[in-house]
Amino acid sequence: MPSIEERMKEQIGELQGQLQDYIDRLDAPKTLKDSMLYSLQSGGKRIRPLLLFATLEAFRKDWRAGLPVACAVEMIHTYSLIHDDLPCMDDDDLRRGKPTNHKVFGEAVAVLAGDALLTYSFQILSEAPPALLDDRKKILIISELARAAGPEGMVAGQTLDMEAEDRRISLAELESIHLHKTGKLISFCVKAGAILADADEKTQAKLSEFARRIGLAFQIRDDILDIVGKAEILGKNVGSDQSKKKSTYPALLSLEGADKKLEETIFAAKTILRELPLETSSLERITEQIWKREN
Amino acid sequence: MPSIEERMKEQIGELQGQLQDYIDRLDAPKTLKDSMLYSLQSGGKRIRPLLLFATLEAFRKDWRAGLPVACAVEMIHTYSLIHDDLPCMDDDDLRRGKPTNHKVFGEAVAVLAGDALLTYSFQILSEAPPALLDDRKKILIISELARAAGPEGMVAGQTLDMEAEDRRISLAELESIHLHKTGKLISFCVKAGAILADADEKTQAKLSEFARRIGLAFQIRDDILDIVGKAEILGKNVGSDQSKKKSTYPALLSLEGADKKLEETIFAAKTILRELPLETSSLERITEQIWKREN
Repeated sequence: MPSIEERMKEQIGELQGQLQDYIDRLDAPKTLKDSMLYSLQSGGKRIRPLLLFATLEAFRKDWRAGLPVACAVEMIHTYSLIHDDLPCMDDDDLRRGKPTNHKVFGEAVAVLAGDALLTYSFQILSEAPPALLDDRKKILIISELARAAGPEGMVAGQTLDMEAEDRRISLAELESIHLHKTGKLISFCVKAGAILADADEKTQAKLSEFARRIGLAFQIRDDILDIVGKAEILGKNVGSDQSKKKSTYPALLSLEGADKKLEETIFAAKTILRELPLETSSLERITEQIWKREN
Repeated sequence: MPSIEERMKEQIGELQGQLQDYIDRLDAPKTLKDSMLYSLQSGGKRIRPLLLFATLEAFRKDWRAGLPVACAVEMIHTYSLIHDDLPCMDDDDLRRGKPTNHKVFGEAVAVLAGDALLTYSFQILSEAPPALLDDRKKILIISELARAAGPEGMVAGQTLDMEAEDRRISLAELESIHLHKTGKLISFCVKAGAILADADEKTQAKLSEFARRIGLAFQIRDDILDIVGKAEILGKNVGSDQSKKKSTYPALLSLEGADKKLEETIFAAKTILRELPLETSSLERITEQIWKREN
């Protein structure tokens, strides 16, 4: 029986093969495909797909049933990074230690590659094999993904984040930004896993609560890493939040306060897991990773 | 019994009310909603929704059944205009006689408003009232729309168009650009109408052929208007294709040649309609409008 680490490695390998395959099969201009693939394969942590797989495992379901949805959510996440790095947005040159998409392909292609990934993710969901996803589940998942990523979700978060620049904001505002910007897509992964596994409503609600906590923890850790992280491990410059005068958890709570809040949030997430009658070892493992991650 | 003109006016009114409603109900940052609505309501010809309604009428179905799909396609069309006008793309300041989205809201919000409209269109389809669209039809229409708009459709066309700038291209290349850039979304509207009306495959194929012709005619007329049109009617500067050295039908075929090709294409489209056992008067009317339009 493989360890959790071995299985996660296998999951990431399969995901990346599948993503490659989805791009390969496209009858589209080469530049566009190259640009889409460049960012898709620039090696993130794949935390969202892993969460989806871990949720399926919690219900003792085959994680492979989650592959199309995992690819769709990774495409949405990737498009958001490409657009977010644009000169008119965060104007970042480096992402995961590599030049950002527009630095390699130019701004116009970067905008188009983002648009293409976003649109393609819905195509993939609608055309997933019926054996994995029946029409009812497809519709539910498309609706949930669009809500998590769209004007009431991630795009709202990006807008709020931008409007908060150079301005002192409250802790409540900061949480609202992150809930939208990263939290909703992370929650989507857990919810999609629960839908695929036919979870009952009560279990879904508990899992959503868990997802909200780890989404928050993810962001607190992100803010902390911007101060204490090592540039060579992060693959981007540290201190960029401070230089942009961004409101962060350490800025609002002090570094110690942020550490404490992170620990409390992780504890709350783990408590929810312990109370669920599910096989939660993979979910616990990801929670641990979010807490301790160095990049 | 209202005339075709009166009915189209009614359809555009209902569409605009519905679009307004879709934005109003969003729990999203005000700037984002304002920016989405600004471009949605800047008064295009609504040719895509009208085509969808006219296809439903051809099958003697209630055109109102097409409202959610019509709104989704208009949102996709609008997002593509917003991104296309960006400084890193076509860098246009005027659209339909009004400042372009990024001129009013800034580039960052324009990128986000485009992303939001694109994502929201799939949400609207997935959440349309079951009485109008059952799950099977929703899935079919989402798949068709994503194909028409995504990396094998409209986004491919934008990429090809960009790559063709400052370069002499063949007539075949020009047709491929337009087939992708505008043709596929126009064809989608006819196809979606046919799906909604439960058309048989043979009728769907004939209608697709019709849609391909009017998509082409639309673009030839667009190119001709860039030379002979009046700036105040077009709402944008004329001669911009020539000044950008863009390949166009008049550039490749001469103005007379382009006029002739337009006429032939319209004739072919009308011939297909005449052979269909449907009530095609609205579709004929739109074909006529595409031929004679001044903006």
